[in-house]
Amino acid sequence: MQEITIAYQRLLEQHGYKYVALYHALREGILNGTLPARSRLPSTRSMAEMYGVSRGIVAEAYDLLLAEGYVEAAVGKGTYVSEQVVVEHSHRNDKQAYKTDFEAKGKGSIDQQRNDRSTPTLSRWGHRIVQLDARQSVEPPNGRALEQEKVQLQSQLNSFPAHAPISFCPQDLVLQGNSLADWKTALTGASQDMQSAAFTEEMSTIGDMRLREAICTHVGRTRGIRARPEQVMLYSGSQEALVLLCQLLINEQEPVVVEDPCYTGIQKAVGAAGGKLIGAPLDRQGILPADWSARLLFVTPGRQFPTGAVLPLARRQQLLQWADRQNAWIVEDDYDSEFRWGGRPLEPLKALDHSEQVIYVGSFSKSMFSALRIGYAIVPPALIAPLIAAKSLYAPLPSSPLEQRALARFMQRGDYMRHLRRMTRLYRPRFQELHRLLNGRLSELFDWIDTDSGLHIYGSWQLERSQYERFREQALELGVQWKDASLYQIATGAPAVCFSFAHTDEQQMQQGMERLELAWQRTLE
Amino acid sequence: MQEITIAYQRLLEQHGYKYVALYHALREGILNGTLPARSRLPSTRSMAEMYGVSRGIVAEAYDLLLAEGYVEAAVGKGTYVSEQVVVEHSHRNDKQAYKTDFEAKGKGSIDQQRNDRSTPTLSRWGHRIVQLDARQSVEPPNGRALEQEKVQLQSQLNSFPAHAPISFCPQDLVLQGNSLADWKTALTGASQDMQSAAFTEEMSTIGDMRLREAICTHVGRTRGIRARPEQVMLYSGSQEALVLLCQLLINEQEPVVVEDPCYTGIQKAVGAAGGKLIGAPLDRQGILPADWSARLLFVTPGRQFPTGAVLPLARRQQLLQWADRQNAWIVEDDYDSEFRWGGRPLEPLKALDHSEQVIYVGSFSKSMFSALRIGYAIVPPALIAPLIAAKSLYAPLPSSPLEQRALARFMQRGDYMRHLRRMTRLYRPRFQELHRLLNGRLSELFDWIDTDSGLHIYGSWQLERSQYERFREQALELGVQWKDASLYQIATGAPAVCFSFAHTDEQQMQQGMERLELAWQRTLE
Repeated sequence: MQEITIAYQRLLEQHGYKYVALYHALREGILNGTLPARSRLPSTRSMAEMYGVSRGIVAEAYDLLLAEGYVEAAVGKGTYVSEQVVVEHSHRNDKQAYKTDFEAKGKGSIDQQRNDRSTPTLSRWGHRIVQLDARQSVEPPNGRALEQEKVQLQSQLNSFPAHAPISFCPQDLVLQGNSLADWKTALTGASQDMQSAAFTEEMSTIGDMRLREAICTHVGRTRGIRARPEQVMLYSGSQEALVLLCQLLINEQEPVVVEDPCYTGIQKAVGAAGGKLIGAPLDRQGILPADWSARLLFVTPGRQFPTGAVLPLARRQQLLQWADRQNAWIVEDDYDSEFRWGGRPLEPLKALDHSEQVIYVGSFSKSMFSALRIGYAIVPPALIAPLIAAKSLYAPLPSSPLEQRALARFMQRGDYMRHLRRMTRLYRPRFQELHRLLNGRLSELFDWIDTDSGLHIYGSWQLERSQYERFREQALELGVQWKDASLYQIATGAPAVCFSFAHTDEQQMQQGMERLELAWQRTLE
Repeated sequence: MQEITIAYQRLLEQHGYKYVALYHALREGILNGTLPARSRLPSTRSMAEMYGVSRGIVAEAYDLLLAEGYVEAAVGKGTYVSEQVVVEHSHRNDKQAYKTDFEAKGKGSIDQQRNDRSTPTLSRWGHRIVQLDARQSVEPPNGRALEQEKVQLQSQLNSFPAHAPISFCPQDLVLQGNSLADWKTALTGASQDMQSAAFTEEMSTIGDMRLREAICTHVGRTRGIRARPEQVMLYSGSQEALVLLCQLLINEQEPVVVEDPCYTGIQKAVGAAGGKLIGAPLDRQGILPADWSARLLFVTPGRQFPTGAVLPLARRQQLLQWADRQNAWIVEDDYDSEFRWGGRPLEPLKALDHSEQVIYVGSFSKSMFSALRIGYAIVPPALIAPLIAAKSLYAPLPSSPLEQRALARFMQRGDYMRHLRRMTRLYRPRFQELHRLLNGRLSELFDWIDTDSGLHIYGSWQLERSQYERFREQALELGVQWKDASLYQIATGAPAVCFSFAHTDEQQMQQGMERLELAWQRTLE
C-alpha cells in the first residue's frame, strides 16, 4: 500500500477532498496493477487508521469505487478489486491511456502500434470524452450508489446502531399511488396504439407528434411559450439535446459561455465538442450579463442550477440583447420548473424570444420518474432541419416510442397536471420544513440561497474549508450525507452543498438536523 | 413552372433517374420560393404530360416530397406545398444553406452575420450531417411513405382499378398472434420490475444487465460467439452503435473501408465523423480482401448488405489477418442473420476473433418489430470504457429501459426463439416462392444473387440503364414497386434492386410478377 499512500498525498493536494483523493489513489492502484484483480481491500477501520481519516471517508471512497464497478462488495465478505474492471481499464494511467490519432502518428509506423489493442487509438473526440468521463466520475454517489452505501454503513458502522443513514442526496424518483395507476393505464393504451398502422405515421425521427403537441399545450399554459409542435424535438433526456446542440453549433476551440457553477452535463457537452468553457460569475440573483465574445450561452434563468437563484427580468432582457448583438444562441435549460412552492414564475427567456435566439430545454425525469428517459427542446425554426439531421444520424426512429406515446396520453388526459398537483402537495411541507431547519440550525455554517421552486436547497460554506471537511467527515460518521456541489464549480470557490428533500419526510429531516448539530459540535472539539 | 422545368433537365443529367430529378426540381422550387407555401401542385396527369414522363414517376416524386413533409396531400383535394417546411428549410439552396464556421469567419465580421438566423452558422460536423441528410433523403420511400403512396395510387391511377398496389419494398414489421401475446406479457412484467428498487441497480448507462446476459446466451448458442455481458453495449438501434464507433475511432480525413454497395447508414456514420469512404469492390461471394491502408473496416460477412452474398471462410480469415497487420478494427454488422432458409451459417468474424479486433453489431428491429429500438454491439475489452464514456455523454441511463427489460424477459423465457421459429415457418414459403418467381420470369432482366437467409433478394440489372428506367416506370404504372438499391452504391454501377417478401404472400407475389411481365412487354413496345 506504500504506492497508494504516496498517490493519496499527491492527490489530496490536487483535489482538496480526502474522500476524492482516496478514491483516486485506490483507482490508480487498481488501474496500474498495484492492487491486482480479486485482491481484498483493507477494512474501512484499518484504512482509516492507515490514512488518518474517519471510517466514513473511507466508506465514501469505497462507495465511489463500488458505484463504478472498480470493486465489488458483499456484506460480511469485505471489498475486492473487481475482475472485470481491470480488463476494461487495462492501461497505465488516465493521461497515458488513450493515444489520439495525432500522437499515434507522431510515434511511428503502424507496425509499432501492433498488438497494442489494450490502449486503442481514439479520435480527438474519443480522447476528449474519455478524459471527461474520468474527470466527472468523481462526482459523489447518487441515489443508486447510496443504496450500496447503506449496506456498507449499516454493516461497517455497527458501532452506531442508532444511526441509520439519512441522505439529503437526490434519489431516484418513482411513481406512486394514483399517479402510478394512471401511468399504467397510459402505458396499456400506448402499447395498443403501437401495434396499429397509424402509430408509425405519427412517429417521426424527432418523436411522437402527439407528445410534441401535448408539450406545446403544456408549456403554453404553464410557461407562456408559444410554439408549434414541429419546433418540439424529443430526446432521450435533456442531456442528449445539450450534447447534440454543442456538436451542431460549435467547433473545437470555440468559446461557450456557461454559468459558474453549472450542471456537469453541460460542461461535458461543451468539452466533448472541444469547446472552451467560459465560466460566467453569478450573484444571488443568477448570472451577471456581460459582453462575452461567444456564439453560444447555456443558462438556467428559471432556477439556476445548482444555486436556485431566479434571474430578474432586466437581466433576462440583457441576455437576449447580447444574443441579438452577437448573433448568438441561448440554450435555456428549464430543468426544474414544475414544482413551485410560492410566488409566480417569471417568463422564461423563450417566451420573450422575439428574434428566435433561444433554445428551450426541458425534461420529465424529475417531474415524472428517473427512469423515464424523455427530454425535449423547443427550437427556433432555422434549427429544425439541422436538428432533425443530427437526430436521424443516430436513429431513424425515436428511441422510446412506447413511453413517448404513453406520456402523450398521460398529458392529454390531464393526468400529468393532476400528478404535478399531487406531488406539489406532498413535497411542499417537506420543502418548508427543510427550509426552516436549514435556516435555523445551519444558518451559521452555510449561506442558503432562497428559492421558490425545485427539489433541492443550495448553500455555500461560510467558514474555513478545513472546517467543512471535518464537518462532512463527522456527518458521514453519524450517517448523514448530502450532495457536495463543489464539483459543479469551474473556478474553485467555497465548498457548497445541495440538500434534496423530495424522497424524505419531516421526521427524518429533523433527525438529520439533530445529527448535523452533533457533527458540528464534534467538529469544534 | 418554367424554372422547375429547367431545373428538372439539369437534375436529370445529374441524377439519371427521372423521379429523383423531378423530386429534386420540385424540392428546389419549394425551397427557393418558386412554389410558395399553400400553392397547389399540378395533378400527376398534367405533370406527366408537362415533363413527358409517366404518371407513376410523378407519383413517386410526389411521394418522396410527402414523406419528407415538403408537401401535404389529402385524397380528392390534391397536393399542396406544406406551410411548415418552407419555414424549416428557408434557405436558398442546399449548397449555400449552411455556412461552416470557417466560411462564416472568412466572410467577415459578426456584424455581417446579424439577423441571419434563417441560415445558422453550423460546426463542421453540423455542416456535414446536413449535407448527408440532403443526399440520403433521395432514398426511395420505405414502408411508411408507401402507405401514403397507396392512397395516391388508388386515387390517381383509378384508370387501373384492377391494379391495387403491390409492394416489394421493406415494410414496417409488427408482432402478431402468439408472439404479440408473449410480448405483452413481457411488457407487463417489465413495467412491474420498473417500479422496484432493484430495477435501477441492474440498469447501467449501456443497458439492462439482464438483457445483456440474454444476448450473450443467444449469440453463444446461435452464432458461436463467446462474450461476457460486460462486453455487450445496448443502443437505440444498431445505427447508434455505428455512429458512435466512428466518432470514437476516426478523425476527419481518415480513410475508412466499406463494402460497395453498402448500407447508407454506414456511409452516413463515416461521413458525419468526416472520414473518407474507401469503397471495397465485391463479387458474388462478398468483399474482396485487399491490403487497405486504413484502421477501420465495416463489413457484413454473414449476409452482405444489400447483395446477400455470404463471405467464404478463407476471406473471413484474410480480413482478420489484415486487421492484425494494420492494427485495425473490423465492425461486423450482422444485421439480418436470424432468419435462415437453408444450410448452416458460417461462423461470424467475432467467433474467429482471437486478437480482439472485431466489434459485432446486431439489432432486433428486423427480428422483432420495426418500432423496437434496441440494437447492440459486442466489443473487445479495450473498447468497453471508451464506449461507456461515449454513451454516457448523451444519456446517463438507457433510453428505453422498459423495452430493454421486456426483451430480456422475452428472451429468457424462450419466447424469442419460439418467435423466430414461428416467423421462419411463416416466411420460408414466401422466400421460396419469391426465389422461384424471380429466377423464372425475371432472370433475363436481373442477375439475382443466391442467398440462404434474410428478408430480401438482390438483383442487378443485366440490360441497358435506359431500359431499366422504362421498366421501372411501367411497373409503377401497374402499381408494382420495389426498393431501388442503386443508392447503396458508392461508385456508380448497374441499376440494382431489392425485393422484400416478409410482409406479402404467395398470391400477391404471383400477381406482382404477372404485372412485371406485362410491364416488360410494354417496355419493349
